[in-house]
Amino acid sequence: VGLSTNCVASKPPDTLRWEGDITGALVLLDQTRLPSVVDYLVCRDVETVERAIRTLQVRGAPAIGVAAAYGLCLGLQSVLSADDSNFFDRLTKVAALLAASRPTAVNLFFAIDRLTARAIELRGRASPSAIAAALLESAQQLEAEDRAMCAAIGAAGAPLFTDGMGVLTHCNAGGLATCGIGTALAGPLVAHQQGRHLHVFVDETRPLLQGARLTAWELMQHGVPCTLICDSMAAQVMREGRVQAVVVGADRIAANGDTANKIGTYGVAVLAKVHGIPFYVAAPVTTFDLTLASGSSIPIEQRASQEVTHWREHQLGPAGVSVYNPAFDVTPAHLITALITDRGLIREVNESGIRRVLGVSTAP
Amino acid sequence: VGLSTNCVASKPPDTLRWEGDITGALVLLDQTRLPSVVDYLVCRDVETVERAIRTLQVRGAPAIGVAAAYGLCLGLQSVLSADDSNFFDRLTKVAALLAASRPTAVNLFFAIDRLTARAIELRGRASPSAIAAALLESAQQLEAEDRAMCAAIGAAGAPLFTDGMGVLTHCNAGGLATCGIGTALAGPLVAHQQGRHLHVFVDETRPLLQGARLTAWELMQHGVPCTLICDSMAAQVMREGRVQAVVVGADRIAANGDTANKIGTYGVAVLAKVHGIPFYVAAPVTTFDLTLASGSSIPIEQRASQEVTHWREHQLGPAGVSVYNPAFDVTPAHLITALITDRGLIREVNESGIRRVLGVSTAP
Repeated sequence: VGLSTNCVASKPPDTLRWEGDITGALVLLDQTRLPSVVDYLVCRDVETVERAIRTLQVRGAPAIGVAAAYGLCLGLQSVLSADDSNFFDRLTKVAALLAASRPTAVNLFFAIDRLTARAIELRGRASPSAIAAALLESAQQLEAEDRAMCAAIGAAGAPLFTDGMGVLTHCNAGGLATCGIGTALAGPLVAHQQGRHLHVFVDETRPLLQGARLTAWELMQHGVPCTLICDSMAAQVMREGRVQAVVVGADRIAANGDTANKIGTYGVAVLAKVHGIPFYVAAPVTTFDLTLASGSSIPIEQRASQEVTHWREHQLGPAGVSVYNPAFDVTPAHLITALITDRGLIREVNESGIRRVLGVSTAP
Repeated sequence: VGLSTNCVASKPPDTLRWEGDITGALVLLDQTRLPSVVDYLVCRDVETVERAIRTLQVRGAPAIGVAAAYGLCLGLQSVLSADDSNFFDRLTKVAALLAASRPTAVNLFFAIDRLTARAIELRGRASPSAIAAALLESAQQLEAEDRAMCAAIGAAGAPLFTDGMGVLTHCNAGGLATCGIGTALAGPLVAHQQGRHLHVFVDETRPLLQGARLTAWELMQHGVPCTLICDSMAAQVMREGRVQAVVVGADRIAANGDTANKIGTYGVAVLAKVHGIPFYVAAPVTTFDLTLASGSSIPIEQRASQEVTHWREHQLGPAGVSVYNPAFDVTPAHLITALITDRGLIREVNESGIRRVLGVSTAP
């Protein structure tokens, strides 16, 4: 299905959806072809799902988890009539295949483990086809929880975005990273749906351009007024008084509120502070890692220099140049005005404030 | 001439050079092919020079001025034996052609006006071929002055860059923008030649990537250790303690020291301030415009959205997306630690400090 990206869809396309019963298929929006082409990938076997996760046709931690769950169901379609032993052999193989597709994606392991545990729970008490049907239900439940998580973040965040505001965001923590309305974009999106006029400035987010390719496209699909800028223009846009709030997602939040997110987030947070602009981080409670005292314990992944020196086959930088390409940076808690979670706002961005909202008691 | 960019040249290539006498040719390094290909364009007529300026094969205000001066000489080669009237008709046409190649380049008009004035001064007192020879001398004088300007900035700036320093720069204000060793890069380059160990972090400088394409390449040619980063990584590199000085060029400096330079400069200046890192602006005294009281009088050119949404033929952002693409921003004087000029350092970055070094008395 090829749609012109110039037209604003009445309903934004789903990141993914399951079609049919246990013999059905997983339909994924191919994010590698955005924003030029809106195309869906129909996955009828687990290998196609594994490749889609590995090649970033589907990306974003929540969306990857749900895609893997449905991938597991696809992988069991060949053993619906098999005996119990063959069914569980196949389940083990399929789970291993999916787990290797994106080795750093925590949501992926969580999803696979949850479905595997459910299958083991039913083993001997239900037929393979009944177990497979139950796993499809579990996958659908995961998807529903993901949508609900986004909606809860949107409800908590929306009041922060008032009429006439300019909002700046970095990277893509939108619906394309989830099955719902996203995390960072959920608050502005709900505010927009409630009739408030917002204008979103989208950092293009070098080197992989998730802002340009995904966030800007997604906002246009929702009909939210937006403007694409280069990352280096954020300071100027702030100085000109065009931005009244910044909102970003998070990859990991330490116990004290220090937040790891896409490279460039820290710089935006510093600029927001200097310009007196509130800086919000939106994330589900599953993003908090209370075993990490502070952001200094979060390892920063270094990525390939090719991402900076090339765009597709085009060489941008000199051959052999040294490149520094950290995937993430850590924004210290003192630069964060509030955390927007699916359990509500955390306005006191420190360990006690976080534990209170998460309902976790402080260690003695 | 195609050289591999992997090998470090013993002598960095010239931005431009004149070869031969008044019947000679202008040889330009084709900057549109960098960093993939090191190729020289031999210009034997003014049309080739005009196109080279228009298509950015040669760029940077000082280099454009000198290229235009040599282009004028090339344009007169067909009338060396003509009569006075035909010679001056041709001079007028050639000057107009060159002036239209880059309508906003002040150095270009300055160079053309200087040569035209020299021709008028000699009219009736010398033959067309003698006048043409005098204009070639004027062009060579312009080139020599440009080299001397760079060297003076380098001498003034070098002491600021001490052994072991990390230096961050944005855009390209290097030798490729001049006939000499550049402006922003002159100080670090002279410090390097004096044996001090520096490491330069190069902002890639979206959208046109002058840092990645030109600055990183140029530093490698000089054997200066450097690392290419995306603009959004500057904050992280500063936070990690890798940068002890920032140095950038300038397009225009107002009477109070406010400085217009490539978009992204202001954000880098804010980040430097917050991280306690000195921020230097290097520029010849011709960049100061004392008729402008402050940076708020400097108009900011808005450029085509295509620069942000596309790289060559590749679409990076959604079709029809709104883009904000200011070419420059203004860094307020209070964020600038010192100005590095061809008349020495200006450490008191305000109107009286600037007038003192420039030798201009303050208006009563």
